[in-house]
Amino acid sequence: MASKQGESKGSAPGKNMLWGGRFTGGLDPLMVAYNESIYYDRAFYAQDIAGSIAWARANKSRGILTSDEFSAIEKGFAQVREEWATNTFEIKPGVDEDIHTANERRLGEIIGTGIAGKLHTGRSRNEQIATDMRLWLREELRKIEGYLMNLLKVVAARAEQEIEHVMPGYTHLQRAQPIRWSHWMLSYGLAFATDLQRLREVVKRVNRSPLGCGALAGNPFDIDRDAMAKELGFDELIYNSMAGVADRDFVVETMQWGSTLMLHMSRWAEDLIIYSSAEFGFVKLADAYSTGSSLMPQKKNPDSLELLRGKSGRAFGHMAGLMMTIKGIPSTYNKDLQESVEPLLDHVKTVGDSIQIATGVLSTLAIQPDKMLAALTPDMLATDLADYLVRKGVPFRETHHISGQVVALAEKEKTPMDQLTFEQLQSVDKRFEKDIEKTFDYQKSVEMRSAKGGTSKSSVEEQVKVLKKMLE
Amino acid sequence: MASKQGESKGSAPGKNMLWGGRFTGGLDPLMVAYNESIYYDRAFYAQDIAGSIAWARANKSRGILTSDEFSAIEKGFAQVREEWATNTFEIKPGVDEDIHTANERRLGEIIGTGIAGKLHTGRSRNEQIATDMRLWLREELRKIEGYLMNLLKVVAARAEQEIEHVMPGYTHLQRAQPIRWSHWMLSYGLAFATDLQRLREVVKRVNRSPLGCGALAGNPFDIDRDAMAKELGFDELIYNSMAGVADRDFVVETMQWGSTLMLHMSRWAEDLIIYSSAEFGFVKLADAYSTGSSLMPQKKNPDSLELLRGKSGRAFGHMAGLMMTIKGIPSTYNKDLQESVEPLLDHVKTVGDSIQIATGVLSTLAIQPDKMLAALTPDMLATDLADYLVRKGVPFRETHHISGQVVALAEKEKTPMDQLTFEQLQSVDKRFEKDIEKTFDYQKSVEMRSAKGGTSKSSVEEQVKVLKKMLE
Amino acid sequence: MASKQGESKGSAPGKNMLWGGRFTGGLDPLMVAYNESIYYDRAFYAQDIAGSIAWARANKSRGILTSDEFSAIEKGFAQVREEWATNTFEIKPGVDEDIHTANERRLGEIIGTGIAGKLHTGRSRNEQIATDMRLWLREELRKIEGYLMNLLKVVAARAEQEIEHVMPGYTHLQRAQPIRWSHWMLSYGLAFATDLQRLREVVKRVNRSPLGCGALAGNPFDIDRDAMAKELGFDELIYNSMAGVADRDFVVETMQWGSTLMLHMSRWAEDLIIYSSAEFGFVKLADAYSTGSSLMPQKKNPDSLELLRGKSGRAFGHMAGLMMTIKGIPSTYNKDLQESVEPLLDHVKTVGDSIQIATGVLSTLAIQPDKMLAALTPDMLATDLADYLVRKGVPFRETHHISGQVVALAEKEKTPMDQLTFEQLQSVDKRFEKDIEKTFDYQKSVEMRSAKGGTSKSSVEEQVKVLKKMLE
Amino acid sequence: MASKQGESKGSAPGKNMLWGGRFTGGLDPLMVAYNESIYYDRAFYAQDIAGSIAWARANKSRGILTSDEFSAIEKGFAQVREEWATNTFEIKPGVDEDIHTANERRLGEIIGTGIAGKLHTGRSRNEQIATDMRLWLREELRKIEGYLMNLLKVVAARAEQEIEHVMPGYTHLQRAQPIRWSHWMLSYGLAFATDLQRLREVVKRVNRSPLGCGALAGNPFDIDRDAMAKELGFDELIYNSMAGVADRDFVVETMQWGSTLMLHMSRWAEDLIIYSSAEFGFVKLADAYSTGSSLMPQKKNPDSLELLRGKSGRAFGHMAGLMMTIKGIPSTYNKDLQESVEPLLDHVKTVGDSIQIATGVLSTLAIQPDKMLAALTPDMLATDLADYLVRKGVPFRETHHISGQVVALAEKEKTPMDQLTFEQLQSVDKRFEKDIEKTFDYQKSVEMRSAKGGTSKSSVEEQVKVLKKMLE
Repeated sequence: MASKQGESKGSAPGKNMLWGGRFTGGLDPLMVAYNESIYYDRAFYAQDIAGSIAWARANKSRGILTSDEFSAIEKGFAQVREEWATNTFEIKPGVDEDIHTANERRLGEIIGTGIAGKLHTGRSRNEQIATDMRLWLREELRKIEGYLMNLLKVVAARAEQEIEHVMPGYTHLQRAQPIRWSHWMLSYGLAFATDLQRLREVVKRVNRSPLGCGALAGNPFDIDRDAMAKELGFDELIYNSMAGVADRDFVVETMQWGSTLMLHMSRWAEDLIIYSSAEFGFVKLADAYSTGSSLMPQKKNPDSLELLRGKSGRAFGHMAGLMMTIKGIPSTYNKDLQESVEPLLDHVKTVGDSIQIATGVLSTLAIQPDKMLAALTPDMLATDLADYLVRKGVPFRETHHISGQVVALAEKEKTPMDQLTFEQLQSVDKRFEKDIEKTFDYQKSVEMRSAKGGTSKSSVEEQVKVLKKMLE
Repeated sequence: MASKQGESKGSAPGKNMLWGGRFTGGLDPLMVAYNESIYYDRAFYAQDIAGSIAWARANKSRGILTSDEFSAIEKGFAQVREEWATNTFEIKPGVDEDIHTANERRLGEIIGTGIAGKLHTGRSRNEQIATDMRLWLREELRKIEGYLMNLLKVVAARAEQEIEHVMPGYTHLQRAQPIRWSHWMLSYGLAFATDLQRLREVVKRVNRSPLGCGALAGNPFDIDRDAMAKELGFDELIYNSMAGVADRDFVVETMQWGSTLMLHMSRWAEDLIIYSSAEFGFVKLADAYSTGSSLMPQKKNPDSLELLRGKSGRAFGHMAGLMMTIKGIPSTYNKDLQESVEPLLDHVKTVGDSIQIATGVLSTLAIQPDKMLAALTPDMLATDLADYLVRKGVPFRETHHISGQVVALAEKEKTPMDQLTFEQLQSVDKRFEKDIEKTFDYQKSVEMRSAKGGTSKSSVEEQVKVLKKMLE
Repeated sequence: MASKQGESKGSAPGKNMLWGGRFTGGLDPLMVAYNESIYYDRAFYAQDIAGSIAWARANKSRGILTSDEFSAIEKGFAQVREEWATNTFEIKPGVDEDIHTANERRLGEIIGTGIAGKLHTGRSRNEQIATDMRLWLREELRKIEGYLMNLLKVVAARAEQEIEHVMPGYTHLQRAQPIRWSHWMLSYGLAFATDLQRLREVVKRVNRSPLGCGALAGNPFDIDRDAMAKELGFDELIYNSMAGVADRDFVVETMQWGSTLMLHMSRWAEDLIIYSSAEFGFVKLADAYSTGSSLMPQKKNPDSLELLRGKSGRAFGHMAGLMMTIKGIPSTYNKDLQESVEPLLDHVKTVGDSIQIATGVLSTLAIQPDKMLAALTPDMLATDLADYLVRKGVPFRETHHISGQVVALAEKEKTPMDQLTFEQLQSVDKRFEKDIEKTFDYQKSVEMRSAKGGTSKSSVEEQVKVLKKMLE
Repeated sequence: MASKQGESKGSAPGKNMLWGGRFTGGLDPLMVAYNESIYYDRAFYAQDIAGSIAWARANKSRGILTSDEFSAIEKGFAQVREEWATNTFEIKPGVDEDIHTANERRLGEIIGTGIAGKLHTGRSRNEQIATDMRLWLREELRKIEGYLMNLLKVVAARAEQEIEHVMPGYTHLQRAQPIRWSHWMLSYGLAFATDLQRLREVVKRVNRSPLGCGALAGNPFDIDRDAMAKELGFDELIYNSMAGVADRDFVVETMQWGSTLMLHMSRWAEDLIIYSSAEFGFVKLADAYSTGSSLMPQKKNPDSLELLRGKSGRAFGHMAGLMMTIKGIPSTYNKDLQESVEPLLDHVKTVGDSIQIATGVLSTLAIQPDKMLAALTPDMLATDLADYLVRKGVPFRETHHISGQVVALAEKEKTPMDQLTFEQLQSVDKRFEKDIEKTFDYQKSVEMRSAKGGTSKSSVEEQVKVLKKMLE
């Protein structure tokens, strides 16, 4: 950096830099790279062009452009779009600092700068980037909505098909009570369905138009913002021009949403990683979603699930970082906001890919019902034992205590609880009667929990219905 | 901690610990403190009691309790509630580990454990705490909704009254274009109004009932969850019992919402801190929201605004911490979730207080219109100059360049742009005509931006209307 | 908040507010509460007094105070300190806004304001709070150092004693290779020992003196900063007065350190939670560190470990929140910095308690060596099988492939790998010889890994030595 | 994703996948992309090769490889390295999933798989990636150390040269007391110097060798870990093999360090953004570090500073995300850890670039001493006024009050404090004498603060010395 400490001698700013009329100094090459966004905001090329065409059409209505000029612009942009789509657009390094500059520069080459130079009338890149990001994000979130619905359909289908399988339910990772495997699947299914519901709210806030906000103060040519919004498929306007260029809440909210979804994904993956351990053995991942070890030939690792779990941190990091960035700035546009773009691109890709991977994992997952059954142990029916006495009129606090004594006796005798003799049970409490033996039945246990949201077959079937309804 | 390394010799667990039937060892006193939540979850005493009464009533319907037993419970709880309300409830240290235990223990003392011991039938603390938190949070968020509406009313009122004042608008903290002071206020007003809108969505997801979910598997006595939900004012059930006890999304979403609001608050405070510096001088805080220096007698510091700005980090920390906590756990209830309570209490207080402080600051703030006016400089009209030429048919790119040359000339001549002679302007571009002088008018400049969302009077008035509509 | 929207009518500021000479307006009662810190910065009472005495002594040296005045101050403060220590200090609500104000107010009551009024000469609360926090934190970190050393001693002792027990080592939570139980303990032990090492570096940066920095510009009475630093046990001065009052890096670094330690704690707890599940069953927590269920009598939950894991999020939240707060401010003191105090108090308590709890858990944990052994399966020796062939000269890539075929064969034949016949092994590769059977030995497997850091007895013993050395 | 829901029909795994011996199913193409790391971990190609050569050399010593085999490997890798360096290495999509696989695959093509297949003997990718990352990071941090020293040299040089310029010092962004411009620069200089100090501690913990740790259990061929560590320039071994593959603390600590540095950067940038506003006007950025507006011809925006400020959030996001990722995993290697790589690459680039940009900004920044001087106002000497009376024997609390009254009088009379008549001053307090007029001198004010760390010339010069010493 020695050269910087003397006088700055970078390359002169290119002619096509939008603010080129005034500066006389040079640019530090590292600063050029530090500042430019073209290598990532090119993702918005189609949205940027669509926004520019809407802009040009609205300016035509106000007499800023003639019909011929507008047609030339529209036609020229068709070519620019084609170049991007076919990967033949040639970025001019150091000149095309962002997608807006690149598109306008190229348009000028195609249709002449006489007409192209009129396009930006009354417009600012501040409103352009906000428009591009919102349009792009809206489309991506709609794709993600589709992915999420696919995942939920798999959950619903499996939950219906595999409703008979009973397995241990855990709290504190300790065996607690028997549940249906479908009940487990639905516990996440309903969380993801809530994500879907919330996503639809987020999209509405994303899909608001900043076009016409100018640099910060609005548009001086009375541009028809409603018409542009309609053309671009926006639901609504942003009604204050300063807010329009300052606001990255739509990115933050998307990331908050995505991070929450990824928390669900992480917990889901965590469960499945544990269930696919040798010790649990409830599920087996398809080879397609596992990998082996370079050293240990016997290993089959749930890499897909671990990546899902790990990427939940990444998604959170995007959100946390951007919130910090936005926190520290005053109102309207500050260049800090450029730092919202790359994290957004990565966040959306991470979330979208993750949902698809999870769908693949779940739809190819093999369950091991025998292992599930084998993991059920009579002590998991201790609550049912207490409930039995409740039905005999004993206060729950007392039944809980008695049942605890039965558990302790079974431990002491090293006998499974269901194999204690009737006499042994009576030694704990006289109110146990012969019908107590019917309590030691896992199927009965899950069927007993028939209140809404419980483990009985009818309750689980109702959950599937609720889930399907949320997909509509 | 030396004693721990040998055999554990803590105090024996109290009789009233809910899980007391089985443990034989002692407890480390530090562990008792580390584990207990009573000193903060006591905040939920009223909700816990309301939930228990709904529970008892539903169990009465199912024949678990007689009418007399239910009446005793209801009456007993009236006394317990009164004790909390009058601050006479005596917490038993080491026994009342949480609010559920404390309430039931006290109930037993009042009505006898024979009846009180039936209350918990089929119920788990897992569902209780989730119910308590949701009920409490719902009420708090409704209070916050009220605070937020108050703030927005102040914004709307001031925006209407002070619409004539023009001030510099900034991007990059550089003077950009003239705006109305009301336009600035509304730029935040509309952001806060969006917070209000989103809050109403959040409350809906908070206000769902987990009561009847049991420890994880549901209720074995076919309890009427809908009736309980209705009694407690919930909008909807949570339809999967595992989800019901596992879910702290309602806390996370509240904190995401609160953190976003606090980001707005921080940017708003940042603007006002800058505007109240001697160099800007646009506003003066009321003494009530400022403090002095212990060393420097002349100082008047915007402490209220700095605290608002600083507490935005605190609110974010609550959210970030909780998301990390939840990230790392498997499904259903894990004790880690206890860590959601204290941050929630502090978060909600921080956000609620902050909105009220902001309202106080804004409603007592004195503006200095002369300083605002004095800070407007002719170079802020450079865009208007370019727009002038656009109206003469010159392409914008060219006008932007020409206007830049005028700015440079003014700088070189050390003459404000509006005092350049007509000849000087013509030396830059022949298309300047005599009417150019009308461009140098700040009021005209703001009025020119009459498209929706802009700085013209009518646009600003429309924004006030939009804002008021969002308050309905 | 209605009253705020009209003229502010809060209570008049008390006489003892340090900046009381100038303000004429009132204070909003909520603002008083929002602003005051006395209810938490009282934690620093002893440090605040010690700092004030050092200040007074230094001012005596410069002739600002006479010897008698100094003695009066010192004696007066002894009483104030005693009042705090015996919990008889009476905070004046709305007057004692922070610990500095409270201490000086009370001093004035005891020795008269004529002398007490000289104490603050040339001093600012900005430097006072920084001094108080650093002194307090230094002491707390030294306590934590002690707790951490205790934990590490338990690790070392158990690792030595229980070195014979072999268990499965996991990667991806899949059984990988046999390891010693002590090796597992030491894997965390060495991470915690690195925390210890780093803690000692952190303390050095904490223990630097800001006293004498003034409000921001230094001291005008040529106060002897070195003498004060020496009296207070500081290692070094902060050499720029603006930095001295602006800097909360010592808090951030402490929290970064604490959060990293808590990450270790969380992973450690996660392992033990899994190991204490019924399915793994390698360890049993002492009753003192477990709790039961209010519903399920058989449950014994690892609440201590879950809290450790959950509080890791809390510790991170403190750090994340504070970093965001600091991020958004300009240089020197801004009131936002007050938001560093409460999180610090909670962070330090959380970390200190957690280390002690972990020590308790580990020192009372029962291991189940039989279960560990039973979980070892022959396929975990697949790498040893590959290594066997390497020793016969077969390239590793080939041996890895061959060993994989043996694993597949065993799976296909539903025969444990070590019970495949010699012929079956030879059917996979002719280079297997009779001595292959010696490979199927878990003890031999761990002993084979004798390079430094490996699972052999000597390697593990070396690790214990390394650990002990780090405690010195 | 429809295809996934039936049977998996992805492409068969390539022969060169390291775990290829066992899997029979196919891979989902999205899963291949989700899993592979080659497109970013290729950054470590040189370190991966260096590590492999050290590994081969150590295996030669143990007789695993012959001298000829080793030579072939070394020579082969020279070619592989050259291919990477000249950008001619051809990545095989879907086969070269990571840099380790790619390098070994290519080596096999060059020297034959007979020899290349021996390279991985006793080694795991778990230890390889940890080694690669540490080696790479060590080098990068050393580069960053150099950048940081350059920045500090600029600070020291300017602080020496521009020591005469006096400007307002701010607390709460309110004018507080006069300071030297150099004092401001040094306040950050010393913070950055502390970063340098801490960096040197971080590097030590980065530079520890995991090579020889295996997959988790160590090395079965008694490899000489010390020799490998020495060859690769590591300072020390990691003494537990499980810790060696599990540990990403070196990444977390680097990011904690980097985030703290970026907090300093953000505050520094914030100050300069404010100082370069029209209202303050203390500094002017070089054109090389500013940009213009696409709409407003007069604008010159401090984009470089805003990016520095904004990227501070990005750097924090890396850290926060990774900490969350690591938080949620059990011990040893889990695939989640792959998520540490991309954030690290971006973090290190962000921090390194930012320091260089800051150096460029500072070394080309023009100061406006006249504006600094003009912003000094007599009320900033109110503390000096109080100190004046202290020197006359008045207790500070009283002088603070009196000085406050003078400020109020000046405000009331709309007369600058230094232009109040002697009579007016005496009307406030009789103890003002004629010599009071000497107090109204900004140069004198800064010179008065001559205690260490203060604003006097000698104090500032001492700070420069301290700073320079820290660079050694």
